[in-house]
Amino acid sequence: MITLASDFGAHYPAAMRGVLAAESDARILDVTHELPRQDVRAGAFWLRELLVSFPPAVHCAVVDPGVGTDRRALVVEAGPHRLVGPDNGLLLPAARRLAPADSIACYEWAIRSPASNTFHGRDVFAPCAAAVHDRPPGDLGSHPRLTPVSEPVALSLPQPTIEAGQDPRGVVLVVDGFGNAITNLPGSLLAGRAGQAVTVNGRAATVVEAYAEVDDGAPVVTVGSHGNVECAVTEGRGTDAFGLAPGDAVRLSR
Amino acid sequence: MITLASDFGAHYPAAMRGVLAAESDARILDVTHELPRQDVRAGAFWLRELLVSFPPAVHCAVVDPGVGTDRRALVVEAGPHRLVGPDNGLLLPAARRLAPADSIACYEWAIRSPASNTFHGRDVFAPCAAAVHDRPPGDLGSHPRLTPVSEPVALSLPQPTIEAGQDPRGVVLVVDGFGNAITNLPGSLLAGRAGQAVTVNGRAATVVEAYAEVDDGAPVVTVGSHGNVECAVTEGRGTDAFGLAPGDAVRLSR
Amino acid sequence: MITLASDFGAHYPAAMRGVLAAESDARILDVTHELPRQDVRAGAFWLRELLVSFPPAVHCAVVDPGVGTDRRALVVEAGPHRLVGPDNGLLLPAARRLAPADSIACYEWAIRSPASNTFHGRDVFAPCAAAVHDRPPGDLGSHPRLTPVSEPVALSLPQPTIEAGQDPRGVVLVVDGFGNAITNLPGSLLAGRAGQAVTVNGRAATVVEAYAEVDDGAPVVTVGSHGNVECAVTEGRGTDAFGLAPGDAVRLSR
Repeated sequence: MITLASDFGAHYPAAMRGVLAAESDARILDVTHELPRQDVRAGAFWLRELLVSFPPAVHCAVVDPGVGTDRRALVVEAGPHRLVGPDNGLLLPAARRLAPADSIACYEWAIRSPASNTFHGRDVFAPCAAAVHDRPPGDLGSHPRLTPVSEPVALSLPQPTIEAGQDPRGVVLVVDGFGNAITNLPGSLLAGRAGQAVTVNGRAATVVEAYAEVDDGAPVVTVGSHGNVECAVTEGRGTDAFGLAPGDAVRLSR
Repeated sequence: MITLASDFGAHYPAAMRGVLAAESDARILDVTHELPRQDVRAGAFWLRELLVSFPPAVHCAVVDPGVGTDRRALVVEAGPHRLVGPDNGLLLPAARRLAPADSIACYEWAIRSPASNTFHGRDVFAPCAAAVHDRPPGDLGSHPRLTPVSEPVALSLPQPTIEAGQDPRGVVLVVDGFGNAITNLPGSLLAGRAGQAVTVNGRAATVVEAYAEVDDGAPVVTVGSHGNVECAVTEGRGTDAFGLAPGDAVRLSR
Repeated sequence: MITLASDFGAHYPAAMRGVLAAESDARILDVTHELPRQDVRAGAFWLRELLVSFPPAVHCAVVDPGVGTDRRALVVEAGPHRLVGPDNGLLLPAARRLAPADSIACYEWAIRSPASNTFHGRDVFAPCAAAVHDRPPGDLGSHPRLTPVSEPVALSLPQPTIEAGQDPRGVVLVVDGFGNAITNLPGSLLAGRAGQAVTVNGRAATVVEAYAEVDDGAPVVTVGSHGNVECAVTEGRGTDAFGLAPGDAVRLSR
């Protein structure tokens, strides 16, 4: 199985599906092609949250502002999973979620001419995903185009500041399609607080366990499916009610 | 085969596909993940219109404003089809289109902890769809997590008012991606009227059999692919020309 | 394998997938359902660029402003590929990219009642794609519903004007999801000019080989993955920076 994820939107993913269908007999499943455009960190968050539901597979993922520069093409072995994409940190949070650190190994995939300078999803990463798909476990290192990489480009998702006696502070990692602002604050901050009033950056909200616990239009704070605190509005968009956008700082007072 | 439909948009459906691929060897086909958000009635309309084209399958469908409350998880057997989703009426119009009433039976799927309170698509309905996928026909009742339900939550699509001597009255059920306002008025109202002038809420339009029968920009009323009257504009959006939005009342005068 | 492409957006493609799954055991892969709405020429461009990445398949593609009129349903044999869709020129640029002219043959598919007047994707083209999927190579002509067509409706993508001593002139064919304005000017016009300043309709830009060669927000002109000149902005939308929309004339001065 090969999964596909990108920030390509409507049209370009077809070329990647075509290459995979031409060069592999793997089953192809789309993850999403609506990763936030050119935002490596947001892409890394979504991949970390979504790939964990999949069985072992080759996950080909592309958010790649550096396409055409000398950034490397990366293959990450993460236990029984393999991740293929640009060496810009996109793949690592997902890899660390999928496998323990001592089961993760990184390789550079040699990019050969002719590849376009603008569409490595089609010209580099899809062929690479097809090539690694059938390699047996532990056998990536023997592929002639793969070379071990000891220091892939690092990326860590921002960490919240949680200190005794102070309000927890974090950031909005992404906004989902419902308009829920997903923060990096751990859901454990809300444990035992259902029904209580809190504020987010000074705006009042109610802690709920399920969106429907309050009337339509009421701002709520809840633990999202990713385990993080999210700011939402039943039958509305939390981003509007809380005035939040991706990257914004969030202070939760209880 | 398992089909997937939801109002989840871009990102969350991936987690459902992953669960299905991990827990079943079924073929997975997306219906759509752009059902109108949180609108159970509109979702029920689209499912009724779209699922009828599929061969027998497990159809997993989620529009679920009540996620995390005590609403039940429902499995509907509808002849050779099975539908899985929240017990909020979403599934029933489609079930009634797929099978006669005496071939429809409903079951509650026991929700077990730990399930999130916000993403039953991933945590409840996808695992349920995988579980019922391989049960032989007529064998749902013997599954230990399935219990017969005699009164699932009812939902009927709104019915038009058609009386002799009066203008037919209905509502806009949904708006499609072309901006066509799809009403609940039966297409039979337009039989034999091609080329005639009508009004919709007082706005003039021409009855056509095909969009291209009139010049670009002209408002038309036609019978859509679902058999209902729809208000459209060739090379434009019918919602703009007619001033219509989902839920609006529609009076058709001839 | 059957691929699906259309301008249908979110909902209607499901009915086509259902019909294909019901009437064929072919693998189904989506190309895109976000072809520019009702724009046959733009659809032809995208199909030409995207289908070439696929292995031999039946490609069912629908952009069909004339649905319900007397326009024919067309099957194009293009070497080992087959294309199915309306006879409005949509399929021909892709066919010419997929196979040499002497390997291209066109057939009319007999449309039978009852087919809707508004959704031939479901009622005509998907069943046709399923029917031709399993015909052996060279055997389309013997199908009772297929008749050779010697003169399918012609469509050619607009050609640029490139003359010695004058600025090359072309048009914007399409805009992609990143906001890149893709022109019909051949990328060869930029050969050897990386780093140089040019103007597009009088607006200054830099010729680059990769988007990231310049600072965020800087307008660039580059060779896109389709081999054409495109007008882009790193971390922005080229359409905004250059004031360009589909169909606009483009003059490139060097």
